[in-house]
Amino acid sequence: MSAALERVRIVLSHTTHPGNIGAAARAMKTMGLSRLVLINPKRFPDPQAEAMASGAADVLANARVCASLDEALAGTRFAVALTARRRDLSHIAADMRESARMLVEEAGQGEVALVFGTEMSGLSNEDVLKCQRIAHIPANPEYSSLNLAAAVQVGAYEVRMAALGAPSIDNERFDAAAYEDIEGFYAHLERSLTESGFLDPAHPKRLMERLRRLYGRVRLEKEEVNILRGILTSWEQNHRRKS
Amino acid sequence: MSAALERVRIVLSHTTHPGNIGAAARAMKTMGLSRLVLINPKRFPDPQAEAMASGAADVLANARVCASLDEALAGTRFAVALTARRRDLSHIAADMRESARMLVEEAGQGEVALVFGTEMSGLSNEDVLKCQRIAHIPANPEYSSLNLAAAVQVGAYEVRMAALGAPSIDNERFDAAAYEDIEGFYAHLERSLTESGFLDPAHPKRLMERLRRLYGRVRLEKEEVNILRGILTSWEQNHRRKS
Repeated sequence: MSAALERVRIVLSHTTHPGNIGAAARAMKTMGLSRLVLINPKRFPDPQAEAMASGAADVLANARVCASLDEALAGTRFAVALTARRRDLSHIAADMRESARMLVEEAGQGEVALVFGTEMSGLSNEDVLKCQRIAHIPANPEYSSLNLAAAVQVGAYEVRMAALGAPSIDNERFDAAAYEDIEGFYAHLERSLTESGFLDPAHPKRLMERLRRLYGRVRLEKEEVNILRGILTSWEQNHRRKS
Repeated sequence: MSAALERVRIVLSHTTHPGNIGAAARAMKTMGLSRLVLINPKRFPDPQAEAMASGAADVLANARVCASLDEALAGTRFAVALTARRRDLSHIAADMRESARMLVEEAGQGEVALVFGTEMSGLSNEDVLKCQRIAHIPANPEYSSLNLAAAVQVGAYEVRMAALGAPSIDNERFDAAAYEDIEGFYAHLERSLTESGFLDPAHPKRLMERLRRLYGRVRLEKEEVNILRGILTSWEQNHRRKS
């Protein structure tokens, strides 16, 4: 994964606020990206950038400052322009998720870039046409104005997710109880409920079925079965001691 | 889609910097979310929040300020806690993408919440255990510190993507218990366990945390809460009658 991430450049064109550069660096580093390229930033380096970068000072320190998009994209085999505006003259547009998949795939072969425009006006048509694809973030049509660093965060996040290859539920640490353990618990529960009088064997009213539905849904762990049986035993001992 | 988004609360607990509240409001609005809930913000309202909200002043103006997580979650049927730290004793954790799918699915039936902790220390274990699930953003293990508003941006983005993707799983017949019902059950359970002697308040050994983890995972239905409380009551009456 990290090999692909090392080939992804984040290019910020003509950024106005140095704080946004710092926040973008932080966003990149949280997602494992390190190659920041700045085209004619208005103020850089700048203490505001450093303050906003927080623990990502190394990304700022290694940032490359360029004079043009041509220079920023030199050596890349694939570049994606992030844009919010609809364009008459556009490349194939894809959402950021699909674009990230393409970026990571291409990064297997060489250098790639994700390009962001200025805070106010985005990228010029000329710049967009130097990239191979347009990406957009499917934002609220009534207010689609993501902060620059927030857009970098979403873009970097999708690149990382694409590189990770779609993980889902983390159940590494899930230590499922065995079938016999669970059946032992149900038998114990049924005895306890009968003893306490809550379950009337003559009129069971599907109580055990309902409880099986509940505990079946939860997928009990071994340790949890032990706790539940401990509780039942403690209750029973109380009954018996007192009766 | 918008119907589901209107039922998603973004809950920020004990936020230190008002600028982060404003930036979070902006992040929400770009993704079509509008319901911001603040638990004991350090400074709010505040001009910094307004400056960072940019075009999302309406989200700030409609934000609800609460004194506790209980208050913030009242009336929800499903809540997800976003956490960065690994926890020994945790609910099932899923990544933010999967968690967003669950949130949107549950929002089809009622109110849901995505909960964020403080900038420095995140959420307490106690707060996490009041939610049904943990979500994490699969960040760079060497630097996983997303800015709060950046985390809200990623969470809100995934919620919007899930809502756009119109998920399908049928859980119409699932009649989830309300937050208050579930907390009532935990309180009852704790009393019963203490009375029976299984829970020693001087040495609780994280018993209630373990039980919250179990029942939080199962997502209790209303009827099931009634059955479980009926069982507790029956046991208690037995104790008392016999003693």
